[in-house]
Amino acid sequence: MKILIVGASGVIGQAVAQELGKRHDIIHAGRNGRDVSVDITSIESIKKMYEQIGKVDAVISATGGAHFASVSELTPELNDIAIESKLKGQVNLVLLGMNYVNDGGSFTLTTGIMMDDPIPLGASAAMANGAVRAFVKSSSIEMPRGIRINSVSPNVLQESLGKYGEFFRGFEAVPARRVVLAFQKSVEGAQTGQSYQVY
Amino acid sequence: MKILIVGASGVIGQAVAQELGKRHDIIHAGRNGRDVSVDITSIESIKKMYEQIGKVDAVISATGGAHFASVSELTPELNDIAIESKLKGQVNLVLLGMNYVNDGGSFTLTTGIMMDDPIPLGASAAMANGAVRAFVKSSSIEMPRGIRINSVSPNVLQESLGKYGEFFRGFEAVPARRVVLAFQKSVEGAQTGQSYQVY
Ligand SMILES: NC(=O)c1ccc[n+]([C@@H]2O[C@H](COP(=O)([O-])OP(=O)(O)OC[C@H]3O[C@@H](n4cnc5c(N)ncnc54)[C@H](OP(=O)(O)O)[C@@H]3O)[C@@H](O)[C@H]2O)c1
Ligand SMILES: NC(=O)c1ccc[n+]([C@@H]2O[C@H](COP(=O)([O-])OP(=O)(O)OC[C@H]3O[C@@H](n4cnc5c(N)ncnc54)[C@H](OP(=O)(O)O)[C@@H]3O)[C@@H](O)[C@H]2O)c1
Repeated sequence: MKILIVGASGVIGQAVAQELGKRHDIIHAGRNGRDVSVDITSIESIKKMYEQIGKVDAVISATGGAHFASVSELTPELNDIAIESKLKGQVNLVLLGMNYVNDGGSFTLTTGIMMDDPIPLGASAAMANGAVRAFVKSSSIEMPRGIRINSVSPNVLQESLGKYGEFFRGFEAVPARRVVLAFQKSVEGAQTGQSYQVY
Repeated sequence: MKILIVGASGVIGQAVAQELGKRHDIIHAGRNGRDVSVDITSIESIKKMYEQIGKVDAVISATGGAHFASVSELTPELNDIAIESKLKGQVNLVLLGMNYVNDGGSFTLTTGIMMDDPIPLGASAAMANGAVRAFVKSSSIEMPRGIRINSVSPNVLQESLGKYGEFFRGFEAVPARRVVLAFQKSVEGAQTGQSYQVY
């Protein structure tokens, strides 16, 4: 398979690229992507990326930003960061990429545990995660040409505890290895409309 | 209690206003609101509304638009309709209204069954519903001054079958009366962070 990974240089993206790269061709994408550059907050940039790479068998999004703030400090403007990146960025990879995915191919997006098990400062990210999960479930019933779509909801990764540990006190961090399994199930399996919880 | 209902002239809003109006003071809001006018897609308009009405004990949102289209026809621009109205419109009623809600007051937002039980053409609305549910759950853990927040997820209403029936074939429509109960539980009860499913 030819697999596009947006966010391929990230903690999750790297682990997914390494495993799937053993038996598939990986296109590494990101703002500073090794193979192709894309900023998911820009519709034009997403369109340009797809034009450059042409047809693929799978699109994986392992990216999406959000602003962390208590709900009392969150403003509509700060909340837009998650909406533009984690939410619209990922959804637009699907809407604009549909015609570039081969018959029977797949999309896999990334959400996160905080939508189910909330943490302080996480309301904006949780909102975007919940949006992506519901979009995936709903869009799966009418994807054309046998294209499948799933999302992966990781717990905080052991590999990211240095960066995010203080936000996730008491959470049972999972190894990247377990998160990668969910991406494998989505890309190399045959299910659709699922939210794979790696909790 | 003094209760602001945004969307008070709608099918759901009217039923909620009628029941809660028996024992509380209702402020009817909407673009053509009887008591105050507001367009939830405009931050300025929401701010102006709160300045006009002052402090309240409960804010109910029974409104939120979305574009219905198959995922193959949905564009980023058409998807923005749900994001601006159903999603950001409702979330911004909370973010901009927090300081206008009295201690121990509440917010109640509206989602809908299609995020859990998808229908054709519904991906954009489902996305916004999922976002609102996750925002409510996550923000509830850090609302200040004992303010509570819940959402109500109605099945299609019997009263709306004329308008939406063809989208919801096979769904067991519920009477407005049952949906109103969920709003009562949210406003007059003591729970927070809940998504009340009226399915
Ligand atoms: N790590 C965790 O513990 C964890 C747990 C649950 C959920 N998640 C979610 O999983 C996703 C990935 O997390 P991560 O920790 O692997 O992220 P990360 O290490 O910070 O890497 C982010 C990746 O996304 C790319 N990227 C950032 N902004 C972009 C943009 N606007 N357009 C295109 N690419 C962009 C980055 O590359 P460039 O800098 O080159 O653009 C990088 O490859 C995030 O949505 C995160 O919230 C992470
Ligand atoms: N009816 C159902 O079967 C059903 C089932 C599940 C979920 N829902 C959801 O519940 C919500 C209400 O549904 P409904 O059927 O009661 O709606 P409706 O009858 O169409 O009424 C909509 C209400 O919202 C107001 N409104 C519309 N756009 C607005 C805006 N931009 N700013 C402020 N107010 C606005 C309208 O008044 P003005 O025209 O004066 O602005 C009206 O009061 C919607 O989000 C809908 O998706 C409905």
